[in-house]
Amino acid sequence: MKARVFVTLKSGVLDPQGKAIGHALDNLGFRAVGEVRQGKIIDIELAEPNREKAAAAVKSMCEKLLANTVIEKYEIELK
Amino acid sequence: MKARVFVTLKSGVLDPQGKAIGHALDNLGFRAVGEVRQGKIIDIELAEPNREKAAAAVKSMCEKLLANTVIEKYEIELK
Repeated sequence: MKARVFVTLKSGVLDPQGKAIGHALDNLGFRAVGEVRQGKIIDIELAEPNREKAAAAVKSMCEKLLANTVIEKYEIELK
Repeated sequence: MKARVFVTLKSGVLDPQGKAIGHALDNLGFRAVGEVRQGKIIDIELAEPNREKAAAAVKSMCEKLLANTVIEKYEIELK
């Protein structure tokens, strides 16, 4: 089973990297660009056929390592 | 309109950051973890109501700035 984890900054948390990308896009002439925010994707291959167990394991990984839940939120997609 | 861009390393390109995450998960006791790969998400707010124009603009952004197409691939999601 494959899991894809999306880790993004919570709304309200300052995102200087996103701002830098936004400015760079503006400098390149993309005038229609508003707010830009950057996040992470983590693709994990799991040797766990049971969907519920896999989801629980990935949730635990997010809480323990993948996301800093003080400032980041995460979503899990299993396929 | 909002666009979400997924930038990930092409398969075959070495991903040391993903490997580091994989090792860390193994050390934390997650034994079912196979390969781990890391990528980026870029969320862009666009003041462009036309869906096709927005898609074309984001594709151009990817080619020019957001992805290094030698080693990275990108997917665009509009919503």
